[in-house]
Amino acid sequence: MFPLRVGIAGLGTVGGAVLRRIADDAALLTARTGRAIMVTAASARDRAKAAPHLGETRWVDDPVELARSSDIDLLVELIGGHEGVAKAAVEAAIASGKSVVTANKALLAHHGMALATAAERQGVSIGFEAAAAGGIPVIKTLREALSGNTIDRVYGILNGTCNYILTRMEAEGIGFAACLAEAQRLGYAELDPTFDIDGFDTAHKLAILASLAFGTAIDLDAVHVEGIRSITSADLKAADELGYRVKLLGVAQRTDHGIETRVHPSMVAKSTALAEVKGVTNAIAINADAVRELTLVGPGAGGDATASAVLGDIADLARGSRVLPFGRPVATLEHTPRAPMRRHEGGYYVRLSVKDRPGSIAAIATRMAAADISFESIMQRQEAGQDGGYVPVVLITHATTETTIRDALDAVEAGGTIAGKPQLIRIERN
Amino acid sequence: MFPLRVGIAGLGTVGGAVLRRIADDAALLTARTGRAIMVTAASARDRAKAAPHLGETRWVDDPVELARSSDIDLLVELIGGHEGVAKAAVEAAIASGKSVVTANKALLAHHGMALATAAERQGVSIGFEAAAAGGIPVIKTLREALSGNTIDRVYGILNGTCNYILTRMEAEGIGFAACLAEAQRLGYAELDPTFDIDGFDTAHKLAILASLAFGTAIDLDAVHVEGIRSITSADLKAADELGYRVKLLGVAQRTDHGIETRVHPSMVAKSTALAEVKGVTNAIAINADAVRELTLVGPGAGGDATASAVLGDIADLARGSRVLPFGRPVATLEHTPRAPMRRHEGGYYVRLSVKDRPGSIAAIATRMAAADISFESIMQRQEAGQDGGYVPVVLITHATTETTIRDALDAVEAGGTIAGKPQLIRIERN
Repeated sequence: MFPLRVGIAGLGTVGGAVLRRIADDAALLTARTGRAIMVTAASARDRAKAAPHLGETRWVDDPVELARSSDIDLLVELIGGHEGVAKAAVEAAIASGKSVVTANKALLAHHGMALATAAERQGVSIGFEAAAAGGIPVIKTLREALSGNTIDRVYGILNGTCNYILTRMEAEGIGFAACLAEAQRLGYAELDPTFDIDGFDTAHKLAILASLAFGTAIDLDAVHVEGIRSITSADLKAADELGYRVKLLGVAQRTDHGIETRVHPSMVAKSTALAEVKGVTNAIAINADAVRELTLVGPGAGGDATASAVLGDIADLARGSRVLPFGRPVATLEHTPRAPMRRHEGGYYVRLSVKDRPGSIAAIATRMAAADISFESIMQRQEAGQDGGYVPVVLITHATTETTIRDALDAVEAGGTIAGKPQLIRIERN
Repeated sequence: MFPLRVGIAGLGTVGGAVLRRIADDAALLTARTGRAIMVTAASARDRAKAAPHLGETRWVDDPVELARSSDIDLLVELIGGHEGVAKAAVEAAIASGKSVVTANKALLAHHGMALATAAERQGVSIGFEAAAAGGIPVIKTLREALSGNTIDRVYGILNGTCNYILTRMEAEGIGFAACLAEAQRLGYAELDPTFDIDGFDTAHKLAILASLAFGTAIDLDAVHVEGIRSITSADLKAADELGYRVKLLGVAQRTDHGIETRVHPSMVAKSTALAEVKGVTNAIAINADAVRELTLVGPGAGGDATASAVLGDIADLARGSRVLPFGRPVATLEHTPRAPMRRHEGGYYVRLSVKDRPGSIAAIATRMAAADISFESIMQRQEAGQDGGYVPVVLITHATTETTIRDALDAVEAGGTIAGKPQLIRIERN
């Protein structure tokens, strides 16, 4: 059989690892796929930097020209970004009848439906295992392995930067800003950390996973997004004492009101697999009717781990496996109603600064009771260096709705027994 | 496209779940695979019991006749056992040009190479995701997702019965026999528990996983097998105090002496994902050069969870995906040397009953030192109700070899300072 000729656009950490591994592991890949795989052409921003690694690989200045080249069968897009040259190159590859493998979550979250429609029309594939949770084969698991399941919920830790920061904050008792600075120093966070820290990266990945899990069209705008900037050491300490850890989760869940997709800091019980996931590691839990619960834990980023996912997709194409990008024809993907966040149901962690005088707690408890909110636990503790006249009170509620708890807290605030804004963190049950 | 016509041989818990799910989830399966899937014929031991569930499915008395029937494209073999009718039916299906999906680990561990050779010759597939770790997609992960990785080690908890018993023993402080009786009462253990308890079930699964991980021919005889009967509450208590838990692991590992495949009780550090796996749940950790570490946790048995794996395989076949049963042609699978157990390297947990007199421990430590064995920890504690004149001593060694530790313990035994046989449990590092 003719070799599979790969063109790589983008030779950063991931692209470099893919290029090197295809060369070094040629025999292994051929043994496993029955077909030789070779990188025939490549393109990147900096030719001089790439040159020493290129060997006999042909250099192409323009990724779009690379995508159209007659000496490649497959474009591996590792440029990144949801507009500009990455999009143009992927579109050009598909238009000229070539399959695409990409790690570009932003591109898929924004344009996945249009790209998949074009790929279907051309009879080519789009592999994107690397676009969510790096080396963890969650795309293949949702798209293929769980084909016989109705999926109820997919949720997990999808951003290593956030998990690194939260893990450090918890372990060292230090604040968000100091941890972020450390993460930036160590290269775990970008100089502009907004994309990671404020939850947008997780939202992109979640939008893709939700589509695969529920057979719905990607709907990035439907994702409710909150980041981790508001989390304090006090929250992590209180969580610890109450048997929880705080994680930035992406959660996609089937509810009576439609599909709920949300990214926000969540309390997870310490006994769960997700609570045990430390540092930059990612983890995904899937609840489904047949398999019940499946948890996948592994590296969410890094050159080699992401290359592992890219190579898995390339191997599938080399074998001739053909699965539609989103598991079924784009035209058949459902457009389900977005479940509004105010109807979200669950338990809540609430931290308040309460006026230290008789009747304060009673007033709060009365307001909550009036809204039918009951408590799993209440913790009040006087601490050294406390604000004069205010004490921290932490409540863990039983299941209620977002509207109910927010309205009740507004009433508490209006009642004048607390200082500042209440801290509210949703609890994710396993 | 014509529907995919499935014949099911065996309608127990798993077969019943597969039959029901294909009927109930017909629309979902068609949406995900692009093809209708229907069970056209079935066979089982007890026709009367099966009758109410069969609907329009044709009944066939003989599974081999079913396998050859012209109204099925695919045989799902859920009879079990590595000889007799299960083997005959699978062989007949392959010989008549039909693909097979099976949950039969014993059949594959014993005859996988011959069956895969026949399947290759006929151009048909054998799907066996359900044969190892039930609902966890470890076969697909090793065979497809990790195609770009050189795998160093695959290890995990592959038998729910053993893990249930060990979890209960640890949690309740009760002995093996009582826990086994409880597991039998609850249906988690068979009346004849040998297959599970003595490690053979794990060995079958491990032999299959090792083949996929390392590209080697299945070699069931090479697996070193020990069960959990020798584990006592005292071991679990000492492990707990030293920061470990005891799990029955199957471990397949690349070493300098060849591929090591072994099933035995292992100490795993409490901080690891495997240590957290409780009850009948299974878990597999994979170490590989690109992805580093991937851990999959989920149900290892049960009708619905196993059906999930069977349906995943059926869906792949409906889509037309074609992967060789063991990921590459049988003729190219390597026949690597078996790494002898005596050359196994690792840390060891050793529990001894030591004569309570001056110099006993010194004598033991001297023997160990002479063999170059050093300790991570030593724990000696007088306990109530202790054997008169003997005290329990627990040692955790740094890495040494199986020969070295066994020889050293033989010398200790010969020295007369201990009562009974030393307890030896290998430590599995993550």
